[in-house]
Amino acid sequence: MDDKKNFKEHVSSLGITLPEPPSAKGVYLPVARYGNLIFTSGTGANINGQRLYTGKVGGTVTLEDARKSAYWAVLNNISNIYSVIGEDIRNLRILKLTGYVNSEPDFIQQAKVIDGASEVLVDIFGDNGRHARSAIGVASLPFSLSVEIELVAEIMDTRI
Amino acid sequence: MDDKKNFKEHVSSLGITLPEPPSAKGVYLPVARYGNLIFTSGTGANINGQRLYTGKVGGTVTLEDARKSAYWAVLNNISNIYSVIGEDIRNLRILKLTGYVNSEPDFIQQAKVIDGASEVLVDIFGDNGRHARSAIGVASLPFSLSVEIELVAEIMDTRI
Amino acid sequence: MDDKKNFKEHVSSLGITLPEPPSAKGVYLPVARYGNLIFTSGTGANINGQRLYTGKVGGTVTLEDARKSAYWAVLNNISNIYSVIGEDIRNLRILKLTGYVNSEPDFIQQAKVIDGASEVLVDIFGDNGRHARSAIGVASLPFSLSVEIELVAEIMDTRI
Repeated sequence: MDDKKNFKEHVSSLGITLPEPPSAKGVYLPVARYGNLIFTSGTGANINGQRLYTGKVGGTVTLEDARKSAYWAVLNNISNIYSVIGEDIRNLRILKLTGYVNSEPDFIQQAKVIDGASEVLVDIFGDNGRHARSAIGVASLPFSLSVEIELVAEIMDTRI
Repeated sequence: MDDKKNFKEHVSSLGITLPEPPSAKGVYLPVARYGNLIFTSGTGANINGQRLYTGKVGGTVTLEDARKSAYWAVLNNISNIYSVIGEDIRNLRILKLTGYVNSEPDFIQQAKVIDGASEVLVDIFGDNGRHARSAIGVASLPFSLSVEIELVAEIMDTRI
Repeated sequence: MDDKKNFKEHVSSLGITLPEPPSAKGVYLPVARYGNLIFTSGTGANINGQRLYTGKVGGTVTLEDARKSAYWAVLNNISNIYSVIGEDIRNLRILKLTGYVNSEPDFIQQAKVIDGASEVLVDIFGDNGRHARSAIGVASLPFSLSVEIELVAEIMDTRI
């Protein structure tokens, strides 16, 4: 990451628009922190209050739209982390991504869908964006989201 | 939490009955600990050997019963943690809750179901009960459980 | 574990054949490490490039074949960890196993399926193989895998 840019400038320079963090509702938190370890809430392609690409993948939602859904879902995770840790996000390393794809029972391309999330993490964070991951096909998701993404990440200690 | 009460008294004073911890069967553990980090096994509304509210949510199980299922499922998690760490549970902070809802494919109110688990965590632990979470609709669960809940939690170090 | 044997000899002496680690494709990693904490990517019974026991459990895949699928899926996890940490795997402790079973909606024996993975962990690692776990029935899995397994594990510090 270019040291002269702040995180938003860095992201913008890649042609990526970070969405506003989805408003935290109810009793749970967008992000929980344990030391330098970060757990995010599962988030979908909820962009500025609009849920995009809703429905079942392999049914009403195409593979290409599902990839976009994964892309925006993971950007919402990043936006939520950024709203909590600020510029420390420049030292973020992604450890684990779990991607739930709202799937018709015969849809089996979950890996390609979740690539839409994995790839943008590498675009933004470089090698620190590479992560272990699981891609799962599920029966249904809240509000008919087509994809829900959650992360475990590390804020790397750069003082050493 | 009132310092004069032990954990069971605290829970009772809220009108909450902690179930007996489900008997650990087979090769796995109800709870695994890594330093101050706690991982629980996924648990349902298995109360004193009886599985309650079984079936598919949106089908034979109503939203209201599913919320009760989530409530008892998370209390089983807490009961399992308590059986391992005892009164240290007074220093517990919940980091992540994953809630799997056994869903008909067109049921999309998983968030409302899992609120039944999230809310009681805040009732018991106050702000330390607020957590990141994911709510997922799945095709099926062991023994037809309607909800399965797992936690990642922290035992806060209060000696500092 | 017998101190005179290396890990492969130990596993072989139990009559277990560790598969070649599945080739890491694309942007994600088989294993991510945070200090002594290990997160694995979800992996199925992909043995030497062949996906075994594919299909839906309770449908075309029997309980017994699903157990074998879980067995090979978790061995792939172990193989991936071994390829990254080498003989340090002798000090591995399994913290959490999540097992996703590609299930017909009326199949409810996910626990028995995932036992096929849990049991071999105890065979290999003894008490350090005992873990918290969740067994989940899902609508679909990538490439029609019948079981997908992921782990969180700890490399125990033996220098103390």
